[in-house]
Amino acid sequence: MMFGFSIIQKSTRSRARLGCVATPHGTIDTPAFIFCATNAAIRGVPIDYVKAAGSQIILSNTYHLMLQPGSDIIRAAGGLHKFIGWDGPMFTDSGGFQIFSLGHGGVEAEIKSSQQRSGKKALINLTEDGAHFRFHINGRGVTLTPELSIETQVALGADIIVSLDECTPYHVNKLYTATSMEKSKRWAVRSLDVFTKLGDGKQALLAVVQGGVYPDLRQESAHFANSNNFHGFAIGGSLGKTKSEMHRVVDITTQMLDRTRYVHLLGIGGIDDIFHGVKCGIDTFDCVTPTRIARHGAAIVKARENPGNPKQYICLENARYSSDFAPISTACDCYTCQHFSRAYIHHLIKSKEVVFGTLISIHNMRTMNRLMEEIRVGITDDALDAVRDEWCS
Amino acid sequence: MMFGFSIIQKSTRSRARLGCVATPHGTIDTPAFIFCATNAAIRGVPIDYVKAAGSQIILSNTYHLMLQPGSDIIRAAGGLHKFIGWDGPMFTDSGGFQIFSLGHGGVEAEIKSSQQRSGKKALINLTEDGAHFRFHINGRGVTLTPELSIETQVALGADIIVSLDECTPYHVNKLYTATSMEKSKRWAVRSLDVFTKLGDGKQALLAVVQGGVYPDLRQESAHFANSNNFHGFAIGGSLGKTKSEMHRVVDITTQMLDRTRYVHLLGIGGIDDIFHGVKCGIDTFDCVTPTRIARHGAAIVKARENPGNPKQYICLENARYSSDFAPISTACDCYTCQHFSRAYIHHLIKSKEVVFGTLISIHNMRTMNRLMEEIRVGITDDALDAVRDEWCS
Repeated sequence: MMFGFSIIQKSTRSRARLGCVATPHGTIDTPAFIFCATNAAIRGVPIDYVKAAGSQIILSNTYHLMLQPGSDIIRAAGGLHKFIGWDGPMFTDSGGFQIFSLGHGGVEAEIKSSQQRSGKKALINLTEDGAHFRFHINGRGVTLTPELSIETQVALGADIIVSLDECTPYHVNKLYTATSMEKSKRWAVRSLDVFTKLGDGKQALLAVVQGGVYPDLRQESAHFANSNNFHGFAIGGSLGKTKSEMHRVVDITTQMLDRTRYVHLLGIGGIDDIFHGVKCGIDTFDCVTPTRIARHGAAIVKARENPGNPKQYICLENARYSSDFAPISTACDCYTCQHFSRAYIHHLIKSKEVVFGTLISIHNMRTMNRLMEEIRVGITDDALDAVRDEWCS
Repeated sequence: MMFGFSIIQKSTRSRARLGCVATPHGTIDTPAFIFCATNAAIRGVPIDYVKAAGSQIILSNTYHLMLQPGSDIIRAAGGLHKFIGWDGPMFTDSGGFQIFSLGHGGVEAEIKSSQQRSGKKALINLTEDGAHFRFHINGRGVTLTPELSIETQVALGADIIVSLDECTPYHVNKLYTATSMEKSKRWAVRSLDVFTKLGDGKQALLAVVQGGVYPDLRQESAHFANSNNFHGFAIGGSLGKTKSEMHRVVDITTQMLDRTRYVHLLGIGGIDDIFHGVKCGIDTFDCVTPTRIARHGAAIVKARENPGNPKQYICLENARYSSDFAPISTACDCYTCQHFSRAYIHHLIKSKEVVFGTLISIHNMRTMNRLMEEIRVGITDDALDAVRDEWCS
């Protein structure tokens, strides 16, 4: 089977849409959440639990895998799916985000609108050809070109891959953003060329839509993406300094894109952000948050199950849970909630038994998948706001 | 169902025996290996994998659970089985080993015949009444008496529990060992008394056999244990300075014990030591080694699968495994070997993805269970030495 995207139903109240992405490794009902298996592993979670939690697709990071174990090893293993033991759809990014995160000194917080800026020094040298940098672990020098990114992603063999771009942070000015966006366009052309040459016709290539917070630049980038033969789009780059600015950028950018094609929003996974993105027509989201906060003892719950708490999670290390023998959520059908109490997980945290992170990650993955299932029902019933009221306070 | 022990078959070539331990939570085919869930969790492994690896019984440590979460919480949870989500047989120790490990300044290495002695200062004050000490984490003062140990173990609700003893290290002299052994006898009487009063008739109580490396003291301790109404025996205390001395102490002590009752060997789990112990009539073994070495990247393999390597494991961090796409063992039916290659696990170790410890722990547990299964077949066929030749170089 080759890549395909079909829209099953459209909301009458927003641009939300129910869709289906077909890949050689199975289909993805959208809107869907993509879990991050950065180093070819969901951190702390055996892969069969990822499947059992109802996960449809996982994402690995090209930068990390170039560094360790290297694409040759994964190609020799028969590709990323076989290496990991995951037989469902997979997504890889281009490596661009991590490189520019190094280049701009820890840009991740800025991209995600948390208004922080790190003072770290740039570790890359950017030319028309590509990004020259040293791997952060072993210091080995590499030039990541659009060609190398695509060659690597073809070797890894994920179902959905991404053209190389420069991910611009918030703190650069409009001129830099414009110049960078133009270069990302040229890199996307080179990405598409090598993809057409090397690809087996089964992988799908996404264009990254850049342009920062500037509507005219986003328009230019979207026009380019629409005009070329990409299978879909990934919205990247700076989404602004605040949540409301991020929502505005997502809102305008999604309106500029060819609505028959698949749209991914890179690196965003807050529950309210997902509802906003879905209403704008985003089909998939990825974010490390659900598994990252699990390793800090935070279990995601619906707002309706957590009255009076503005956060969308509960912190199980809190002493109030030491003799709370209920599951994290009585409504949850995950392995963790079916077998273990809050008190037991609290005890594991206090005992520094890291399996607590595994158990909460399983719950958080299942919860994000339940969220997306309920969103899909909400679109079917054209009642997304009622679903939102359940999940967001 | 109450506790019961029956001998199914005896070897004609040694004192090895095939047995069955019945408990309220199911039966244990012996000889068997008991895995350590020190803090009410097998480190890094969700409990259903422990079951799927063919594990029959797990052990938790009373000292650790007194400290965190405390026996009241576990009682309120409905007991240790419910708290952990483990429905099979369970074993708890008395807390004595950890206390005397603190008291004698890190005695574990000595007990296990590795000839080291730590210079740490004693943290306990021992009287006829019990052991007065402070918990190593929170500094709270506690007096662990035989009564408190049994009360706690009754509250925890394991199927097999142990009387409180003083676990003497190698470096103390014969007089100390003798005096201590006599006190352990008096503590065992008190343990049995409170067990008879508090117990529900479903738990089984083991006497710990002490006496260090001295045959006459072991004889005196064994005579006491034989003469009292314990369900079985746990061989504890110093087993000598070397492996051969340990084997000698196990050999003579097992000969002194009532052979109709169940015998556990505390804290020993080397593969050659298990073969030796089985031949002496040991029914169960416990040791943290299989899961501990897994977290350092070491996967247990049969000697026959690992020619030229005197170790009973392979270190998967070794670069030779970076492109080895075979499973840890082609003969192994564990989840890990059925799904993942040595190269993938090597990659997880290099990437610091701690799920490697989970995957190797699953393999090591399954391997220890396969070892015990093959030992049981070896007893049935009266061909234990042939099994030993497979496993030990």
